[in-house]
Amino acid sequence: MAEDMTTPLLSDSEAPADADAPSVCLTSPTVAILGSGDFSRSLAVRLVASGVRVVVGSRCVNRLPSGLFPEAVELRNQEGAVSQGVCLVFMALFPEHYHSLMGLRSALAGKVLVDVSNAEEIKINGLSNAERLAELFPDSIVVKGFNTISTWELQTGAHDGSKQVLICSNSTEGKKKVVQLSRQMGFHPVDMGGLSSAREIEVAPLRLFPSWSGPVVVTFLLFLFFYGYGFLRGILLPFLAQGQNAFYRLAVDLVNESLPAVALVTLALVYFPGLFAAWLQLWRGTKYRRFPSWLDNWLQRRKQLGLLSFLCAALHGVYSLCRPLRRVTLLRLVNTAYRQVKAGTEEPWDELGVWRSELYLSCGVLGLGVLSLLAITSLPSVGNSLNWREFTFVQSSLGYIALTLSIMHTLFFGWDFAFHIEAYPFYMPPSYLLAVVLPCIVLVCRCFLLLPCIFTRLTRIRRGWESKRYCPVLQHHHVVANGIP
Amino acid sequence: MAEDMTTPLLSDSEAPADADAPSVCLTSPTVAILGSGDFSRSLAVRLVASGVRVVVGSRCVNRLPSGLFPEAVELRNQEGAVSQGVCLVFMALFPEHYHSLMGLRSALAGKVLVDVSNAEEIKINGLSNAERLAELFPDSIVVKGFNTISTWELQTGAHDGSKQVLICSNSTEGKKKVVQLSRQMGFHPVDMGGLSSAREIEVAPLRLFPSWSGPVVVTFLLFLFFYGYGFLRGILLPFLAQGQNAFYRLAVDLVNESLPAVALVTLALVYFPGLFAAWLQLWRGTKYRRFPSWLDNWLQRRKQLGLLSFLCAALHGVYSLCRPLRRVTLLRLVNTAYRQVKAGTEEPWDELGVWRSELYLSCGVLGLGVLSLLAITSLPSVGNSLNWREFTFVQSSLGYIALTLSIMHTLFFGWDFAFHIEAYPFYMPPSYLLAVVLPCIVLVCRCFLLLPCIFTRLTRIRRGWESKRYCPVLQHHHVVANGIP
Amino acid sequence: MAEDMTTPLLSDSEAPADADAPSVCLTSPTVAILGSGDFSRSLAVRLVASGVRVVVGSRCVNRLPSGLFPEAVELRNQEGAVSQGVCLVFMALFPEHYHSLMGLRSALAGKVLVDVSNAEEIKINGLSNAERLAELFPDSIVVKGFNTISTWELQTGAHDGSKQVLICSNSTEGKKKVVQLSRQMGFHPVDMGGLSSAREIEVAPLRLFPSWSGPVVVTFLLFLFFYGYGFLRGILLPFLAQGQNAFYRLAVDLVNESLPAVALVTLALVYFPGLFAAWLQLWRGTKYRRFPSWLDNWLQRRKQLGLLSFLCAALHGVYSLCRPLRRVTLLRLVNTAYRQVKAGTEEPWDELGVWRSELYLSCGVLGLGVLSLLAITSLPSVGNSLNWREFTFVQSSLGYIALTLSIMHTLFFGWDFAFHIEAYPFYMPPSYLLAVVLPCIVLVCRCFLLLPCIFTRLTRIRRGWESKRYCPVLQHHHVVANGIP
Repeated sequence: MAEDMTTPLLSDSEAPADADAPSVCLTSPTVAILGSGDFSRSLAVRLVASGVRVVVGSRCVNRLPSGLFPEAVELRNQEGAVSQGVCLVFMALFPEHYHSLMGLRSALAGKVLVDVSNAEEIKINGLSNAERLAELFPDSIVVKGFNTISTWELQTGAHDGSKQVLICSNSTEGKKKVVQLSRQMGFHPVDMGGLSSAREIEVAPLRLFPSWSGPVVVTFLLFLFFYGYGFLRGILLPFLAQGQNAFYRLAVDLVNESLPAVALVTLALVYFPGLFAAWLQLWRGTKYRRFPSWLDNWLQRRKQLGLLSFLCAALHGVYSLCRPLRRVTLLRLVNTAYRQVKAGTEEPWDELGVWRSELYLSCGVLGLGVLSLLAITSLPSVGNSLNWREFTFVQSSLGYIALTLSIMHTLFFGWDFAFHIEAYPFYMPPSYLLAVVLPCIVLVCRCFLLLPCIFTRLTRIRRGWESKRYCPVLQHHHVVANGIP
Repeated sequence: MAEDMTTPLLSDSEAPADADAPSVCLTSPTVAILGSGDFSRSLAVRLVASGVRVVVGSRCVNRLPSGLFPEAVELRNQEGAVSQGVCLVFMALFPEHYHSLMGLRSALAGKVLVDVSNAEEIKINGLSNAERLAELFPDSIVVKGFNTISTWELQTGAHDGSKQVLICSNSTEGKKKVVQLSRQMGFHPVDMGGLSSAREIEVAPLRLFPSWSGPVVVTFLLFLFFYGYGFLRGILLPFLAQGQNAFYRLAVDLVNESLPAVALVTLALVYFPGLFAAWLQLWRGTKYRRFPSWLDNWLQRRKQLGLLSFLCAALHGVYSLCRPLRRVTLLRLVNTAYRQVKAGTEEPWDELGVWRSELYLSCGVLGLGVLSLLAITSLPSVGNSLNWREFTFVQSSLGYIALTLSIMHTLFFGWDFAFHIEAYPFYMPPSYLLAVVLPCIVLVCRCFLLLPCIFTRLTRIRRGWESKRYCPVLQHHHVVANGIP
Repeated sequence: MAEDMTTPLLSDSEAPADADAPSVCLTSPTVAILGSGDFSRSLAVRLVASGVRVVVGSRCVNRLPSGLFPEAVELRNQEGAVSQGVCLVFMALFPEHYHSLMGLRSALAGKVLVDVSNAEEIKINGLSNAERLAELFPDSIVVKGFNTISTWELQTGAHDGSKQVLICSNSTEGKKKVVQLSRQMGFHPVDMGGLSSAREIEVAPLRLFPSWSGPVVVTFLLFLFFYGYGFLRGILLPFLAQGQNAFYRLAVDLVNESLPAVALVTLALVYFPGLFAAWLQLWRGTKYRRFPSWLDNWLQRRKQLGLLSFLCAALHGVYSLCRPLRRVTLLRLVNTAYRQVKAGTEEPWDELGVWRSELYLSCGVLGLGVLSLLAITSLPSVGNSLNWREFTFVQSSLGYIALTLSIMHTLFFGWDFAFHIEAYPFYMPPSYLLAVVLPCIVLVCRCFLLLPCIFTRLTRIRRGWESKRYCPVLQHHHVVANGIP
């Protein structure tokens, strides 16, 4: 009875014959690898560890250092490897050497050739390596796959998110074989359709942090804006107007002024799309309509934005802690003492100033601490060990606490300074004032969502309730019950 | 020969007939999902990726946006989905909508219904959703399961600790099916017994950090105690007695005085239960008797206590580093210089004071450094890559080094201050003195355990030796050898 | 058709008979465990979770606390457990108790005994536990395995890098059984050959961070050197020559002078072997010749060296931030102010000094920030979620950026000090000058490798091109095509 279930579930058994595919050999459990480079070696290690018999075919079988491959692997020349009755052949050579195998054409006929190559550059047009291989060997079955797996993953077997093996081919039979083999090796095969998807698969490993590019650009632009604004307001204009030379502030002061502003705005950008989505659901009265794609993208980039915000905040913390180490701080301190002596009085106790500094430091330290917890739960291995309620609690509740503490840190820092005319030289407000606007809006909108009437409606929508039902099936299903539509 | 072993090991093949279960359909490998929400979608994605054919039944099949489900999924209305000859149906709807499916009662008869719902609140009494479902569909086989898996885990397949699928049902056959399916999907099924366990399983995902609540409460109470004590001793009583206003110290100073005390006591609490367990084993002369459950619980919470201790220590570090940034530090510094000038002498070199500050800073930094290493190895992915000897070395040896350094940090900080009468205003000792007592006891007890006579005995006990053998089997086993008892 | 592929791939079906092995029982899917300690319990938990029926045999079956084992486990005395028709028996007892099982000799005959014990000390000679077991039970089939798996991994099933189960035995049949079982339990079996490899497998779990010992020793020796050098130059020789007592500098100052030097040299050591390997490939004109083993080892230790470098750099950062908290800093500051007042002038603005301090602090903070990113991607779970291009980018590009920033930090810190005679008391250059030499060499060599002519050649070699082809097969393969050699 166990048997009955397992096998039909494992594979679609309805497709025994493939019009487009030459007959696939079924007899041999042995797998051949052509090529003896790093990838070939690692692939062999993994295949042997998964219980597969492996033959490696190399151009120069005699020159391979002993011990390069596991003992269980048979080494042969290329002709010998593919003629062993194998039916699955990994092409572990650079695609520009494919033509050098033309002599094996008849030996490879009817066999499944797995193209594991990557594209050399990110361009989507043009023939993919796999398609070129299929042209060269029209009598073989070409399957694209395994190029997204690194040699390191093959060897160690330690893999987390990148267990996926993207597979495509024009032959259902060939695809099925590679799917089976990759499952046996501990990977998660993903069917990407016909061979025309090969280009996309070949380009995948070339992409550099595709999910990070947007958030990094946004953060960088924000930094540029605040840095430039601060430069204009605090250095260039005063220099032009009064000839003050404060260019030394470029390296630390100005960076440390811009970083917290960027961190604050970015943190607000993390929570903004969620609010937007909530309002959209409230307005539409259903959760079953898709969000516009820009909102979808934004929602998927929240983690990256949050981590960048944390990075900026942490750097801001370190820069601030460095202040007492700076020569300029020392100079100022000594001169303050000097002036004090000249004036002949002790510096008076400044209750307000003391409270202000204690409060903004407290809020800052605590805000950064909460952000650190958020960053830690973003580590894959930590996040995975939380249940969804814990994850939601950390990412949402702790996130809003961090946002609130950051806003308070900024407001305590600013104190009543924003109400004095000196805060607006050249009619330009201080940058922290600019930075605090969006976070405040986010916080206020969030509070509105917590109002009982809105909260209840939103919860109902998220549980599947819809304000206007276009779908009469539920009400009338007794009519059509047990009828096949 | 491979065949012979695998299949009987995979499943208990001895239970072909189930008295309590209506005959389970065996024919179809297709799985149906009723409902088209997030969970349904993610479940479908994972099932398809695991090679299972999926039919989704939705009330409003025409209004579903295209692309919501993977291409391989068949979309139908609810009646169509379950009448397809499927025998396993996932109920991916909210439990309050179960009654809306009454019309499908006959179509669902004899089929396995998997209830994936969560409880709405943490209360253990009352009928579970799965039991109510079983009442509604008495002719179907209800299995509880998959509710502990989040949609995110289903989609990404990246999971670490939460691979477990808790399953319960009154039907062995039904359970076996779901067990098989969940293994095929890459999860670890755990049999939780009959359907009466469903309540417990439904409540599981609602629990918020169940292993953290105890340690967090302990840490918080310790913080409250030290904060309150410090407030009394350093702020309130002096204010009442001499009218000194030092309330500004509430925000930073007092927090930074309480944090290290909490960190120290919590770190001692990490190593205390281990010592207690060792003494208990020594006293009992065996390791085969269970520890009292409070000790067992405590032993299982050491990691959490350790991480909270690290959190407090790290916050203490940051607060301390903030000191020079505070306005009050600046005021004091300038006024010290001012008074120096008034007095007309340089501040004399204070060899002892300098050594004290160098030593307690050194110990503090190193102690925090060692604690950081401990915290890093607590990350699941790092800890998993250690063998048990390495793990023990890090958690035990490095832990005691951290404890020793922390105690030294405290003692160097205190220096000879504890021996002066000013240290006891209102007869209250400084809080660091209170905090250092337990850690010192732990350290002394640990040193006793390292005495050769005790250490040898403990090692023998831990290898299985027992002081009084109640069990005569070992000595006489030749008598009963090769007889079945 | 799915069936056809899967089973033969799973196991080498060509070895039905084993000359050296007594006939292996094939009938029972039940597994026995002898012993009732922690390992036995955890093993039972995991086996049950994997769908295996388990019988535990204990000397004192009546004294076992209830609930120690999962309910599905049958508890018996040792004789009862092994005579149940089981054919695979785990020996979960300490090897010194093996002889106590002599009475079971006939019951165990023909069965597979899995020795899960560890060595007690790291010595490679002498008989292994598994070999001694084979001597005691000559009629049984002894397989070594599972000793590298901890009880914790067995219970939680959460494992990352240590999924490997090292297995060895003289019987192919026995090994095959254990391989199958361990796969079923979710581990990766690795065949280590005959029983003579048992010693090596038994010793493996005793090794303490084998990959760390080399890098830690190197880092420690570097620290000793720089600390000793600094002590001589800055404290001992001045004390002997002029009687200056600066011994207080031992605890913080000297450590904080040595740490950055160690960090810098260690970081250079991370990138040195890669350059060496590149030059070697260029010189040899091929990538197919093995590197000398010292270089191979060094290349494999780069991650550890990098993390130790980060540790030193981070400690240096914290020590530096602690400077304003030190008593000696306070004393100096107040006395500077005092002298200022005595002199009757404000301290003049020191543009150069201000710029120097701003720049070296900036470079230091940014360098440490980049190193942190590197350290984070060294976490297994983060590293695994990168594709190889991302990993290379982080580890190589970001690494060189960190190295450059660190060198700049050092040079800005030194400024023109190295060109003054006071920098060379006792003809000894300051330690940062010594530390910066190797990093600069590494950076220059790296820049040479980026020259177009060298870069192109290196890229071609790494793609498989060889300057002198010893292997004529490729050119002539049409001659031998489709012939079996």
